[in-house]
Amino acid sequence: MLPDGTSCVHMVFAGADIVYIGEALPPAPLQRAAQVVDGRGFLAAPGFVNTHTHAAMTLFRSYADDMLLMDWLQTKIWPAEDRLTGADVYWATLAAIGEMIKSGTTTYADMYFFMNDVAKATDESGMRGVLARGMAGVAPTAEQALLESRSLYKDWHNQAEGRITVMLGPHAPYTCPSEYLKRVVALSEELGAEIHIHLSETKGEVDDCFKLHGKSPIRHMADLGVLQRGVLAAHCVHVDEQDLALLKTHQVRVAHNPQSNLKLASGFAPVPAMLEAGIIVGLGTDGAASNNNLDLLEEVRLTAMLHKAVTGNPQVIPARRALDLATRDGAAALGLGGKVGELRVGAKADVVLYERQGLHWCPPHDPVSLLVYAAQNSDVHSVWINGRRVLDNRVLTTIDEEKVKQEVSRRGLKLVGK
Amino acid sequence: MLPDGTSCVHMVFAGADIVYIGEALPPAPLQRAAQVVDGRGFLAAPGFVNTHTHAAMTLFRSYADDMLLMDWLQTKIWPAEDRLTGADVYWATLAAIGEMIKSGTTTYADMYFFMNDVAKATDESGMRGVLARGMAGVAPTAEQALLESRSLYKDWHNQAEGRITVMLGPHAPYTCPSEYLKRVVALSEELGAEIHIHLSETKGEVDDCFKLHGKSPIRHMADLGVLQRGVLAAHCVHVDEQDLALLKTHQVRVAHNPQSNLKLASGFAPVPAMLEAGIIVGLGTDGAASNNNLDLLEEVRLTAMLHKAVTGNPQVIPARRALDLATRDGAAALGLGGKVGELRVGAKADVVLYERQGLHWCPPHDPVSLLVYAAQNSDVHSVWINGRRVLDNRVLTTIDEEKVKQEVSRRGLKLVGK
Repeated sequence: MLPDGTSCVHMVFAGADIVYIGEALPPAPLQRAAQVVDGRGFLAAPGFVNTHTHAAMTLFRSYADDMLLMDWLQTKIWPAEDRLTGADVYWATLAAIGEMIKSGTTTYADMYFFMNDVAKATDESGMRGVLARGMAGVAPTAEQALLESRSLYKDWHNQAEGRITVMLGPHAPYTCPSEYLKRVVALSEELGAEIHIHLSETKGEVDDCFKLHGKSPIRHMADLGVLQRGVLAAHCVHVDEQDLALLKTHQVRVAHNPQSNLKLASGFAPVPAMLEAGIIVGLGTDGAASNNNLDLLEEVRLTAMLHKAVTGNPQVIPARRALDLATRDGAAALGLGGKVGELRVGAKADVVLYERQGLHWCPPHDPVSLLVYAAQNSDVHSVWINGRRVLDNRVLTTIDEEKVKQEVSRRGLKLVGK
Repeated sequence: MLPDGTSCVHMVFAGADIVYIGEALPPAPLQRAAQVVDGRGFLAAPGFVNTHTHAAMTLFRSYADDMLLMDWLQTKIWPAEDRLTGADVYWATLAAIGEMIKSGTTTYADMYFFMNDVAKATDESGMRGVLARGMAGVAPTAEQALLESRSLYKDWHNQAEGRITVMLGPHAPYTCPSEYLKRVVALSEELGAEIHIHLSETKGEVDDCFKLHGKSPIRHMADLGVLQRGVLAAHCVHVDEQDLALLKTHQVRVAHNPQSNLKLASGFAPVPAMLEAGIIVGLGTDGAASNNNLDLLEEVRLTAMLHKAVTGNPQVIPARRALDLATRDGAAALGLGGKVGELRVGAKADVVLYERQGLHWCPPHDPVSLLVYAAQNSDVHSVWINGRRVLDNRVLTTIDEEKVKQEVSRRGLKLVGK
């Protein structure tokens, strides 16, 4: 929305770009040659940026909850993932993209496998995506993952009208031995690709890293040259002062996933301290198997609320700041700063109109507070990505929702042996 | 929903009661004389019980956020509340009830003032309410509040087809001197009315109570005879082992308000320890000024997630348990156990049908998990209270939503001087 909270706006998009935004009608020349949006009565806002997810894990939504992490992975998720096909990933990613669009998200950062199918779903749906082939150096697929990462970059980086960016996705320090990470760094240097990685999500993995390497995962990544490559680090829950200093020094961007961190009992990431230190923080949902939806508005609300109780200070991360994390700062976290995440002339037209008809929007004291603390994702009325209207009065224009639901229901049940 | 998670059901309501529920069509005699509901394709669940709110504070939703508690109360809320009229409270309560019904809540416990207007709104809307006139012994209205509590009980207890219950509402130990609380206890004994009170919400008030009385607020309430009167205690965030033992001994029921506790930086109520001790816990939204909506589903989800991170155990309060807290246990917390909060023959027909068409309900591995972790309040399709359909395909049947929005917007803005 406009900086002063004004929400009655006219907008003009030319191609992928915002060329006019204001309370007054646009000048006549703009009205002729471009897409004119009358946002009066709605709240206009930049689309959300979901900085960390595994979209195709939508297949496992509600399959297994409330379990110990390793038990969940070993007895439920990994066996089911072993049966995945590229088609499963394609349909599930389309479903995830549809769910994200319908809840106001216009950019997502994904780490999974069968990434060519993920890129295809991203391309076809009109979504903006930052894609990484998850690589586990300890897995039998370690070599294949490096090859696929390279081809994903060659095939898809800056493709789909520039909507797709490719990163490298070494899964985590505890699944990638040092020698493997060095090869990832070398590939990153060769391609010029940035890195998306899980860092310090659980206390256990941090303790293990100290035992194995005598230092924290973040120090370990700095020493291996990973942090120097332009890094999007998911979670960073268990970080100390030295870790924060390293994140800042190397301009690492953090993807904060508060619901996942609660549901998996990972803990509370020290986000206020990160912001205080000047570290860029975006918000993410993580996969739908550990959330269990892809509604970034829930993460915005939880981020604005949770850290108040953790710090004992009701003034930390006020509503406007939380909204910034989900938009402008999230874009910066993905290396898309200045391009998306802002509602201004010159930015890409990744825009959401929220309907304000519900009782929960009443009275209209403060639109930002209402969006952050009271709105619901079904208030999302229309969505544009890169200037294309992908949601029109709550109907997806690029995704066959009924077909996607049928495919994902059938495939999800089959994968878990039902 | 049915105990086995079955969600394709037929139901029959006779008057206010559920007389049939099952997968098969009801027997012919029942079909003739009663209201037959075809719930196939929907998820049927008992309506939520919101065990703690201040409905009319909806007027102040989004007016002031992210502030220190005393600054918020002294500079924002109390001055605005001083200007309230009965008509303001009536319209705002209707708006709050409409918002609650639309998000699947069928019973609410309210503590505020102008309670005759609250009772009127409750009566007219078809809502089930447990109403208490908030009484602050330190306020100029202390005597008047006792008188109004008495007349509220006489006028409204067990009225509106039995939908309204009246409790006494001493605000909190820190606003009610001991002598005043003794008078409340005496009135409670005389009328046979139970008590709704705020207890141990903030660390500050607990510390102050130790300074003033040499004991915790809960010990203090036990010594004054308050806990012996049948108590619904809101918050109980800062409680120790002795407090928990007293709550259990006196069968005090706790209203847990996780979003309010986060947003106001109150802290984390030890709900798993309460449940372990056998204390009845219900869920509440608190008022919309400190939440900022009345969507109990958000509290269910947060309860299921938050305590996992607080305890470091992803198995505490699994989805089904969280749903029970919001329904069956919430009903017990309000003294309505066995009457509402359950979907079974013999219970009151307080029933919600959730539509399962959204992408977020897919794949359908587990309906309870989907409701608790993935659903959104806009999935609420139809709602019955006491056998009356108060929401029909998302349209309120007893409340003029447009009129209510106009009144609350106008009155809310006027109260804060806009």
